[in-house]
Amino acid sequence: MDPPSSAARRASVIAGHLLGPYQSIANFSSSPVTPSPCLNYSPPDLSEKPPAFDVAALRRILDGHHHEARDWLFHLMEESPLFCPRRRGEFTFVAPDYNQTKEQQRAATMRRIEYLLGQGVFQGWFTGSDPEAGMRKLALFECIAVFDHSLSIKLGVHYFLWGGAINFLGTKRHHDKWLNASENFQVKGCFAMTELGHGSNVRGIETIATYDIDSGEFVINTPCESAQKYWIGGAANVGKVFHSTHTIIFSQLLINGTNQGVHAFIAQIRDNEGNICPNVRIADCGHKIGLNGVDNGRIWFDNIRIPRENLLNSVADVLPDGRYVSSIKDPDQRFAAFLAPLTSGRVNIAATAVYISKVGLAIAVRYALTRRVFSITADGPEVLLLDYPAHQRRLLPLVAKTCAMSSAANFLKRLYVNRTPESNKSVHIYSSALKATLTWNNMRVLQECREACGGQGLKTENRIGILKAEFDVQSTFEGDNNVLMQQVSKALLAEYIAAKKRKHPFRGLGLEHMNDPCPVIEANPTSSTLRSTEFQLNIICLRERDLLTRYASEVSRFQADGESKVNAALLSYQLADELARAFSERTILQIFIKEETTQSPGRLKDVLGLLRSMYALTCVEEDASFLRYGYLSRDGAAAARREVSKLCGDLRPHALSLVNSFGIPDSFLSPIAFDWIEANSWSTVNDE
Amino acid sequence: MDPPSSAARRASVIAGHLLGPYQSIANFSSSPVTPSPCLNYSPPDLSEKPPAFDVAALRRILDGHHHEARDWLFHLMEESPLFCPRRRGEFTFVAPDYNQTKEQQRAATMRRIEYLLGQGVFQGWFTGSDPEAGMRKLALFECIAVFDHSLSIKLGVHYFLWGGAINFLGTKRHHDKWLNASENFQVKGCFAMTELGHGSNVRGIETIATYDIDSGEFVINTPCESAQKYWIGGAANVGKVFHSTHTIIFSQLLINGTNQGVHAFIAQIRDNEGNICPNVRIADCGHKIGLNGVDNGRIWFDNIRIPRENLLNSVADVLPDGRYVSSIKDPDQRFAAFLAPLTSGRVNIAATAVYISKVGLAIAVRYALTRRVFSITADGPEVLLLDYPAHQRRLLPLVAKTCAMSSAANFLKRLYVNRTPESNKSVHIYSSALKATLTWNNMRVLQECREACGGQGLKTENRIGILKAEFDVQSTFEGDNNVLMQQVSKALLAEYIAAKKRKHPFRGLGLEHMNDPCPVIEANPTSSTLRSTEFQLNIICLRERDLLTRYASEVSRFQADGESKVNAALLSYQLADELARAFSERTILQIFIKEETTQSPGRLKDVLGLLRSMYALTCVEEDASFLRYGYLSRDGAAAARREVSKLCGDLRPHALSLVNSFGIPDSFLSPIAFDWIEANSWSTVNDE
Repeated sequence: MDPPSSAARRASVIAGHLLGPYQSIANFSSSPVTPSPCLNYSPPDLSEKPPAFDVAALRRILDGHHHEARDWLFHLMEESPLFCPRRRGEFTFVAPDYNQTKEQQRAATMRRIEYLLGQGVFQGWFTGSDPEAGMRKLALFECIAVFDHSLSIKLGVHYFLWGGAINFLGTKRHHDKWLNASENFQVKGCFAMTELGHGSNVRGIETIATYDIDSGEFVINTPCESAQKYWIGGAANVGKVFHSTHTIIFSQLLINGTNQGVHAFIAQIRDNEGNICPNVRIADCGHKIGLNGVDNGRIWFDNIRIPRENLLNSVADVLPDGRYVSSIKDPDQRFAAFLAPLTSGRVNIAATAVYISKVGLAIAVRYALTRRVFSITADGPEVLLLDYPAHQRRLLPLVAKTCAMSSAANFLKRLYVNRTPESNKSVHIYSSALKATLTWNNMRVLQECREACGGQGLKTENRIGILKAEFDVQSTFEGDNNVLMQQVSKALLAEYIAAKKRKHPFRGLGLEHMNDPCPVIEANPTSSTLRSTEFQLNIICLRERDLLTRYASEVSRFQADGESKVNAALLSYQLADELARAFSERTILQIFIKEETTQSPGRLKDVLGLLRSMYALTCVEEDASFLRYGYLSRDGAAAARREVSKLCGDLRPHALSLVNSFGIPDSFLSPIAFDWIEANSWSTVNDE
Repeated sequence: MDPPSSAARRASVIAGHLLGPYQSIANFSSSPVTPSPCLNYSPPDLSEKPPAFDVAALRRILDGHHHEARDWLFHLMEESPLFCPRRRGEFTFVAPDYNQTKEQQRAATMRRIEYLLGQGVFQGWFTGSDPEAGMRKLALFECIAVFDHSLSIKLGVHYFLWGGAINFLGTKRHHDKWLNASENFQVKGCFAMTELGHGSNVRGIETIATYDIDSGEFVINTPCESAQKYWIGGAANVGKVFHSTHTIIFSQLLINGTNQGVHAFIAQIRDNEGNICPNVRIADCGHKIGLNGVDNGRIWFDNIRIPRENLLNSVADVLPDGRYVSSIKDPDQRFAAFLAPLTSGRVNIAATAVYISKVGLAIAVRYALTRRVFSITADGPEVLLLDYPAHQRRLLPLVAKTCAMSSAANFLKRLYVNRTPESNKSVHIYSSALKATLTWNNMRVLQECREACGGQGLKTENRIGILKAEFDVQSTFEGDNNVLMQQVSKALLAEYIAAKKRKHPFRGLGLEHMNDPCPVIEANPTSSTLRSTEFQLNIICLRERDLLTRYASEVSRFQADGESKVNAALLSYQLADELARAFSERTILQIFIKEETTQSPGRLKDVLGLLRSMYALTCVEEDASFLRYGYLSRDGAAAARREVSKLCGDLRPHALSLVNSFGIPDSFLSPIAFDWIEANSWSTVNDE
């Protein structure tokens, strides 16, 4: 069947029968009045100017580490039919088939894990424990998420949560017994912390563990419906492969009538044939807007019994005679220790969020360099989307933000893999602030990119829209972003109080600038002032300094009025939000400046400077607090705003090179990033 | 099988075997050290104070019209198994099954249409043409969208686009032949305007129609791949029921070698057995992030022939001898006339967006009135989400906005159904501004509600998350929001230039305030000033007045610098965006004030006053332009911000009553809006 050519034949037959002046019009080929020539696709890689800087070098900066391992993994996914390669025009794209039921998507996820396991991708993910191995694991994990969030979450539950809990909360007996077996998926683990009734407030969970001296066992029970474990990734699957056989259970521990608080235990929930163990009930969490390749489940424990040794006892232990012992006396600190596995999750989420923003921007920018709309002169050609100032303004500040956040994610990962007991606090604060900031940015980037691509942004084959649904969860899981940001401000407040009380200088968290004299901001900054690192740091630090002082004084004013400390902080939530944002943006700017500073002078450094200015001035432009609290004069704010527009013009020629430096292989982008006319042609209809 | 009771039996057996102090702990019922009692669900309808105002009366105001017809239709959907009623605890909820492939979802959509047709829901949708019938149709349409966007879009394509095109662009011969047949779905129509290469820029479409004098036929052709019709709702289905048999084709019309511009034609694309007609090729647009119940398709025409009479000729006609005649000489105006059917779509989209925001807010507010998290005193009870100031601040301003926008949507609908040739311009401007504003608001509301519900917001059974995916398309279809807003500002600029040039006062579009002296804003407004209608109108009008003047002078400055008129407007896009927003918010405020003014004094009016103040001051707080351009002093802005927080406290007691007044039946909400513990209990697992 060849409709176009038969149609053409038919058309020419018809034309041959026509008479009069209409003949040549009906038969377009020879008409002198043919309409304007049909749209042509011009590949931006040919139509745009060649790169003005070393794209590969920028990629190395942005990826930060292990770009070769990334490419290796991308390639592994590209070459397997399990990753649904689809031919569209001259390109092949890989992406999950989202027109599948959740059952089908789960089965596909499990087959992909099996394949990657066979290829050795997860080698060393438990057993390699040096910082390099940690960085490699994080890099590979990001690449997996670029293919599919379900795949990365299903693996994350096993390797980061289950494995992390055993690693951090267990001791040698647990490491020996479980880690090797887990690395090659003989044991498949999940992580049962959240309950129906308690998510953010983990301390309030209702599951109860008691110790039976006689049998030397813990008895773990779900006392009521609100205590059912909920959202447990990997728990629900009814298939036969890669469902969880074991779980970490977070539970209150009652000893001699005293609640010792939340502790973590290992329990088996399925046998090796996949049958659910006695006294365990499991149900599905049902269909979700994304992550349908992950079998989130609910678990009830009906007084299940586990050996005493299954208490993860690095923090506290129960002796055979039932005595409770712990090296950490303060219950708050003990509780905090149990949340350690979540930190790796946050690091991971933050890094992944940036990578996904890159996918969205690479697609939207490439599309905007090939899609034309409206003419601006009579009978003139239609204009490329990205040549509209408004379209530049929508996308290019987000490109700069994503580059800056990429460096911040790399900083966070390095901080994490090199963590020490001393750095735990800053790891917690940075990971909280960056997890919230980078995931919110990602949702905003994807929404802007989706709208910037019009209806094409909604087709799942074009990725952007479905990535929104798949990654929306990042704003609330492993710490609700709003809760995390409030915690960041509370921690900063504690630093402030400590510094003021002890009259010690600020040290750590980048707060050293608080020790300097208050920066003075020019009322009428010139363009070159606005683009200077000094001005940008000054204005961004001034905001943080002032907001921290304001927050501290508002909280203490509420306390002076008789409010409790907790209530005073709750009532000051607006300043807390503003402060946490100020902290995050100052952190990111400092990291990005450091990245730029290490480059030798040249075109790449110049482009990094443009990106840094765009990042800093966009922060200034988007946060009304600069005007609200007078950090900038109205003229200064107007000048910053104009400068952002100028920077859009300055970055426009680099747009393609910038998104090319994101290092996402073509096959992980989408048809609208390439020849979308060819990809939609009739000849491809049967390929779909 | 009865696991809970067998588990309980098992637990009691175990407990009976335990010795020592642990015995009573393992068997919780009698322990003196039982942990805090399990979470209980308290229905907010019992735990909250009784309504302080007449909820039914507020519903009548917000719905505005035809609330009985709405309830009738809601009930029709509730009682049919086709609408997937699912028992959860004591409630039954209706919602599409989104764990279905697009093919299944399309089939379900068609069965639902068949059912509603049989129930007489669509009676008079074509034949009733008085304003009341128009309002009723819009009301019913909104309710259908509350169930499922696919269902409403599939119907909208047929009744609003296909039917609207025949109605507005056709003449008696088309009305007689097609309208009756369409009302009962003997003819099933779609609307082929958009092409792969041209969406917003309809004038640039590449499909070509020529006239063959000899046969008295038009020959319509898709000359190249970019000219394929794209996103054509209703076109793709391969099923046997309710696929489109006919389409409107938008095409360039070439007459005697002259392109007369875009015209609309009727063509048959399938026979009554569902076979695709000769010289027509159809393909699927593929899977989307939402609206998978709509079969969006692509169409190629290979010189198809249609009778001369199929040109929709109310605007222009081709006589049998090939002469082109039109009552509208100006090609711009002629083109504008052809876009008329899109206006009804925009009215519809704006009204639907508000209704969907109501669904999201009703669910999120009800959940926030039953979900507790964290204690604020040691051992104190956990606090209701909605008792946190920060949570109030997230949701309650959006409740007020949605109420105000509800009135604005009613205004727009009435304006539309009572339109006259004289009101066409204002219908176009208001529908553009409100379509963009209300749909953007809807996406924001849904995102905030989804995050406010945590992970529960992601389960499709809880609706909010999936509504985001289903309604995201509203921001870009039937006019990209950004393009529409730029058009609004251009229209306001034209009014400004006309008024200044002719020294006539402003008249229409609510711009009369421009004739008054410039309002003077107090530097230190008190709380009661901030809550006064006068202050609110003054500050909101001041912004519009100033932005219009600024925009006009920026555009003329660019022109003075040698830019073309078009370019000058493109370069002033930021002021255009700000102005269009100022216009929209001023319009909405004025409409909402009018609604309040018509109420007799009493508690309902008081609540409307609170909502109006919240709406106005939230607009002030969220738009940095009040500080940027100095409409408010920094102290004034700070006072407005504090007042929003106070209003949160004032509206908190009314939160439940407010969302109850939205009039969404319980069954169209979701499990988390009611007893979510019961709905998630083990006993319901097999109900799912």
